[in-house]
Amino acid sequence: MVGGGEGAFIGAVHRMAAALDGDWRLTAGAFSTDAGRNRRTGEQLGLDPARVYDSLDALLAAERALPAEARIDVLAIVTPNHLHAPMAIAALEAGFHVFCEKPMAMSVAEAEAIAAAAKASGRTFALAFTYSGYALVEEARVRIARGDLGAIRLVQVEYLQGWLSAPIDEAGNKQAEWRTDPARAGIGGCLGDIATHAFQLAEHVSGLRAEAVAADLTIHVPGRRLDDDVSALLRFGGGARGTLKASQVAAGEENGLKLRIHGERGGLEWAQMEPNTLTLRWLDRPAEILRAGGPGLSDGASGLLRTPAGHPEGYVEAFANLYRGFAAALRGESGGWFPGVGDGLRTMKFVEAVVANAASDRKWTRIDPGESV
Amino acid sequence: MVGGGEGAFIGAVHRMAAALDGDWRLTAGAFSTDAGRNRRTGEQLGLDPARVYDSLDALLAAERALPAEARIDVLAIVTPNHLHAPMAIAALEAGFHVFCEKPMAMSVAEAEAIAAAAKASGRTFALAFTYSGYALVEEARVRIARGDLGAIRLVQVEYLQGWLSAPIDEAGNKQAEWRTDPARAGIGGCLGDIATHAFQLAEHVSGLRAEAVAADLTIHVPGRRLDDDVSALLRFGGGARGTLKASQVAAGEENGLKLRIHGERGGLEWAQMEPNTLTLRWLDRPAEILRAGGPGLSDGASGLLRTPAGHPEGYVEAFANLYRGFAAALRGESGGWFPGVGDGLRTMKFVEAVVANAASDRKWTRIDPGESV
Amino acid sequence: MVGGGEGAFIGAVHRMAAALDGDWRLTAGAFSTDAGRNRRTGEQLGLDPARVYDSLDALLAAERALPAEARIDVLAIVTPNHLHAPMAIAALEAGFHVFCEKPMAMSVAEAEAIAAAAKASGRTFALAFTYSGYALVEEARVRIARGDLGAIRLVQVEYLQGWLSAPIDEAGNKQAEWRTDPARAGIGGCLGDIATHAFQLAEHVSGLRAEAVAADLTIHVPGRRLDDDVSALLRFGGGARGTLKASQVAAGEENGLKLRIHGERGGLEWAQMEPNTLTLRWLDRPAEILRAGGPGLSDGASGLLRTPAGHPEGYVEAFANLYRGFAAALRGESGGWFPGVGDGLRTMKFVEAVVANAASDRKWTRIDPGESV
Amino acid sequence: MVGGGEGAFIGAVHRMAAALDGDWRLTAGAFSTDAGRNRRTGEQLGLDPARVYDSLDALLAAERALPAEARIDVLAIVTPNHLHAPMAIAALEAGFHVFCEKPMAMSVAEAEAIAAAAKASGRTFALAFTYSGYALVEEARVRIARGDLGAIRLVQVEYLQGWLSAPIDEAGNKQAEWRTDPARAGIGGCLGDIATHAFQLAEHVSGLRAEAVAADLTIHVPGRRLDDDVSALLRFGGGARGTLKASQVAAGEENGLKLRIHGERGGLEWAQMEPNTLTLRWLDRPAEILRAGGPGLSDGASGLLRTPAGHPEGYVEAFANLYRGFAAALRGESGGWFPGVGDGLRTMKFVEAVVANAASDRKWTRIDPGESV
Repeated sequence: MVGGGEGAFIGAVHRMAAALDGDWRLTAGAFSTDAGRNRRTGEQLGLDPARVYDSLDALLAAERALPAEARIDVLAIVTPNHLHAPMAIAALEAGFHVFCEKPMAMSVAEAEAIAAAAKASGRTFALAFTYSGYALVEEARVRIARGDLGAIRLVQVEYLQGWLSAPIDEAGNKQAEWRTDPARAGIGGCLGDIATHAFQLAEHVSGLRAEAVAADLTIHVPGRRLDDDVSALLRFGGGARGTLKASQVAAGEENGLKLRIHGERGGLEWAQMEPNTLTLRWLDRPAEILRAGGPGLSDGASGLLRTPAGHPEGYVEAFANLYRGFAAALRGESGGWFPGVGDGLRTMKFVEAVVANAASDRKWTRIDPGESV
Repeated sequence: MVGGGEGAFIGAVHRMAAALDGDWRLTAGAFSTDAGRNRRTGEQLGLDPARVYDSLDALLAAERALPAEARIDVLAIVTPNHLHAPMAIAALEAGFHVFCEKPMAMSVAEAEAIAAAAKASGRTFALAFTYSGYALVEEARVRIARGDLGAIRLVQVEYLQGWLSAPIDEAGNKQAEWRTDPARAGIGGCLGDIATHAFQLAEHVSGLRAEAVAADLTIHVPGRRLDDDVSALLRFGGGARGTLKASQVAAGEENGLKLRIHGERGGLEWAQMEPNTLTLRWLDRPAEILRAGGPGLSDGASGLLRTPAGHPEGYVEAFANLYRGFAAALRGESGGWFPGVGDGLRTMKFVEAVVANAASDRKWTRIDPGESV
Repeated sequence: MVGGGEGAFIGAVHRMAAALDGDWRLTAGAFSTDAGRNRRTGEQLGLDPARVYDSLDALLAAERALPAEARIDVLAIVTPNHLHAPMAIAALEAGFHVFCEKPMAMSVAEAEAIAAAAKASGRTFALAFTYSGYALVEEARVRIARGDLGAIRLVQVEYLQGWLSAPIDEAGNKQAEWRTDPARAGIGGCLGDIATHAFQLAEHVSGLRAEAVAADLTIHVPGRRLDDDVSALLRFGGGARGTLKASQVAAGEENGLKLRIHGERGGLEWAQMEPNTLTLRWLDRPAEILRAGGPGLSDGASGLLRTPAGHPEGYVEAFANLYRGFAAALRGESGGWFPGVGDGLRTMKFVEAVVANAASDRKWTRIDPGESV
Repeated sequence: MVGGGEGAFIGAVHRMAAALDGDWRLTAGAFSTDAGRNRRTGEQLGLDPARVYDSLDALLAAERALPAEARIDVLAIVTPNHLHAPMAIAALEAGFHVFCEKPMAMSVAEAEAIAAAAKASGRTFALAFTYSGYALVEEARVRIARGDLGAIRLVQVEYLQGWLSAPIDEAGNKQAEWRTDPARAGIGGCLGDIATHAFQLAEHVSGLRAEAVAADLTIHVPGRRLDDDVSALLRFGGGARGTLKASQVAAGEENGLKLRIHGERGGLEWAQMEPNTLTLRWLDRPAEILRAGGPGLSDGASGLLRTPAGHPEGYVEAFANLYRGFAAALRGESGGWFPGVGDGLRTMKFVEAVVANAASDRKWTRIDPGESV
């Protein structure tokens, strides 16, 4: 693992997620550029001090030198955004698989470089679009893919947080600080941090590709350098229409990721904060409530669950499903899904299209200029 | 009352709403151009057959000829949209107050003509933006007006219905038929029918004016002549950003009008299908649930309620609040609020701006070209 | 109407409920023993002063003397409990139908006297068990009656209010005062006031008869003379087991009447504060949400609704359904259901059984000693 | 670990819960009396084959013989109920701490024997009353303990499952089979399996002791040998009144554990299926929604959480909190709470009191006959 020293949030989540099913063991790390913090983190995690490295370079060099069965298999990257691409490329080129925090990179160009490095090295790149790991998200995907809703007409996705409502980035909050710093976060603030989750979820579940976007990108908190609020209209292939709303200044909201998709015959709704429920509403019959562990789930969704109905699974379990799927894929087992290069590239194109559109007087911007719309 | 014969929906609602508090009595009508239907409706309602008229013209002429204390005070107009303006103007000019179904008219020009007629006649024009009659909507308005949320940053409003998902307008459904016919509905389908409710509610509660709109107007059901789906971004005065989503092809949805507004310090949420609850979420303290009849309500909201906490009031009661407010205003009492000419004009400008924007490649269209943005 | 002067709660509800559908008109009343209050109430309601009487006796005598087509048809009784029986009997004997507030009477003996008076006079007695007037309650009843859930095993009903948590009855609250006075309320406080609603609803919807009860009757507020809290176990015919919880000291609760019934194949849940939803849960398939106006409703339930799906109907509409059903029955129309003598007698037997059981060391008390269990 | 072989449910949960925070490592086990199953489980878990034992006796003997730093610290017991006491006593006497599935034992006498063994050996006994590990349960406990609600008047707890609605115990379902077999489950079916959870939660959170119970114990599924449905009235010290409902034949219900407690000034509600929310309702101000990770939580509750607000934690995390608390206590850290001997003894007394009361004609049975009521 690179990054994730004492006090960091997402590194600890990766460790819990990887530990949950017993598929993974943390054996080496370069957790912090602060030597003391790095060492202490290694100790707290019970690592062999010899495998707690000063830098990613040191880690890669030393691990490569170990016998194949002793060295790490996968590098988990949990650093701020600007380090994702160089680190991922270095690890892939050193022969290691990579499990990377999102967003994939700072730009489409960087993301494409990762994709090329993965291809050249024959190693696998996984990306932590955590929310697609929930069982009921998979159920939603399956239901749409098999046509239960008919042709899709509407895709509404939103992701509302409120924690950046005040200028805490200027008051020393580390999580806030790097996320609002273009040098470390990239060209998008809220856009890169959470709108990408929303976009990936919408495309992943709907099975559709967004072709064009019209967006409004706003900085509500004075002095902030990156957007803290995103509103967008989307046009999907096949004629579906979408809205995407993401905000980190929706004061009082927690982590409100919600997806609603309607087709000719009905609609579905899933909300991350009550993740074990999927509501299906129908034009001509009563709404149905699908529940984790309950009757009516597809095999794919059921396979992502660990407990019987009514024993809630949460965020860590969804995250663990990605690690589990990644492990299964590396073992060559079928059915081991995880988000990867494709998801990452699409979201980087979305980020660049939104930024371009927001600066333009023209209504629509194509998300993938290389594609014919 | 003009319109609202046997089988019509909204006419019956007006009658229930007006009856509820005992302020109004239905004494005359021209319910249908079908003579039999007109007569039968009058009978069912227990009217004096002499006051069941063949046409609005006949009604106005005859009622005007009655002594002042015997004639009607107010004409309720519950016809399809294209008749609103000519009938309202005729009634106002004949000296009667008007309570009109929304939308106000077919165009801004027509709406302005009504406004002029009201002014010239000294009569009052009320408009059935029903949803602003709910007590908890008033509470939301009061809370924002007095600054509880701080400066407003986000306004999200949505109105999702599914009943036009299939081409029922071509299969003889009368409610659907006229709503999708440009000659009777106007230039907006879903836009005129329900997006106007959403827009009025957003401006009414937020106390803000939307200055510009970027919109996507879609016909999802093949063969339909008017939009059945609206997506829009809004820019409000003062820097708030908005999204407005309205659809009549969100299969499985009922009458899902929902408003969320966030300011610097917190946000509020109100949903029409559970109208007796208003949720307030705060940046720095636990969320609060305000309930009809419960502690913490303003006097204004409490005054709109008829029953103690936990005895749900619904759509008819909200509607009745408009009739009650209108009656109070006509009696010269203070505090008798009802939507009127101002609300109607704003929504007609919104409709025209959306239609113009949807046909344009430019991103933003001003809602009121006469205003400096 | 007798009772329901200025400031009274339930009288106004009766008037709104009766007005809603245009079936009824209030023409006479004895609203208060306070002459000024009585007169003012009549004026506010627009009544002919000649038909605003000093007393029920005066009303009955005068109305009886009017020609049949001019006199009242039905007397609505909205006084405190101790007056229900003498007034109902007087009205029935005078040849008028009666629509009475619940509870029916102060005792089983009084209830039986009303039943006898109704029978002897050939007049009809209706009882305001309001909650059985909701459309989704009717749907629940129909579903169970037609066997959707299989044989019933569990009946859980609860009715939680908090408004008597503090000793407001000693602080001049009139609603609280008479409800906690044995002379006016009877032998049950919370028991008579709201547990009776819960009991009637449970029997009405389940179609089962409770045979025996084990109860705990408590006075939580020091100095109060009647119970403010009821807990009971019920045994129903056919082997179903029940729990009934009613409280008026559940601080913070509003009017939380909730019914859950489970059978061999599934269960249903209905809650008065969200009355337009009925949840059906199944052993072997996803839960379904039935909604007022939505697909899947029986004709009986649909017939109790006035508005399309998503336009919430509430307490007044449920109440109006009883008045509408009563009107239909008096007109001899089929399908006009309303609660009457049977419901009233059962609940009075329940009240007496609970009071007896609560004073006893024996676990079970039969609800109808005259029945063979 | 003893028990928890392939296919068992709760053993896997214990393993995930123990792994989550990195406090524990599984090093030895006797997973099944079936040798092949035992061996395969050990392999799947990556254990040293030498520490996968044929029996608990073998495990205890061999581990005891290891050097202190190599042997196990704690034995997790995840077998059917009838083995809890003998195994716990054997492990305690062999010098190991014990983390035991609930219920503690088959009888009060057995539970007391465990308590004595723990005392004699100086080892610690922890009991998997999982639900008391949720952060919002701790918050509820803290709020009541510090008097927010005032004196407690009502305690309502329910635990509804539906999975035993059909006779699946006779159709080969292993989970169902032993739970309905008196030889393995004890004198209570639903009573021992889930009513004990409800009872422990009610006492733990309210801080009150139930003194007497009046109960109805039912077998709804013909042929079943133990109760599948429990209804009980409770009288608590200090005058609070309680109801407890537990059922495993509430068809369609999942794992519906819900606790409501009301005091003089307000009430709280917590439901296991949405465990990250605690609702507080007040007599004189709006209801508040406390959320995991949100503002207003006590330090104790916050300390049980791993992720920020809006990232749901679930059943495994609650379970892990017990393992974490147990680890902290064994390390001698303050604040490391876990349920233990006291909780276990109380629930066994409750079980015996309910069984005795259900067979009696007397209304109330004391839960702890040794206590003065």
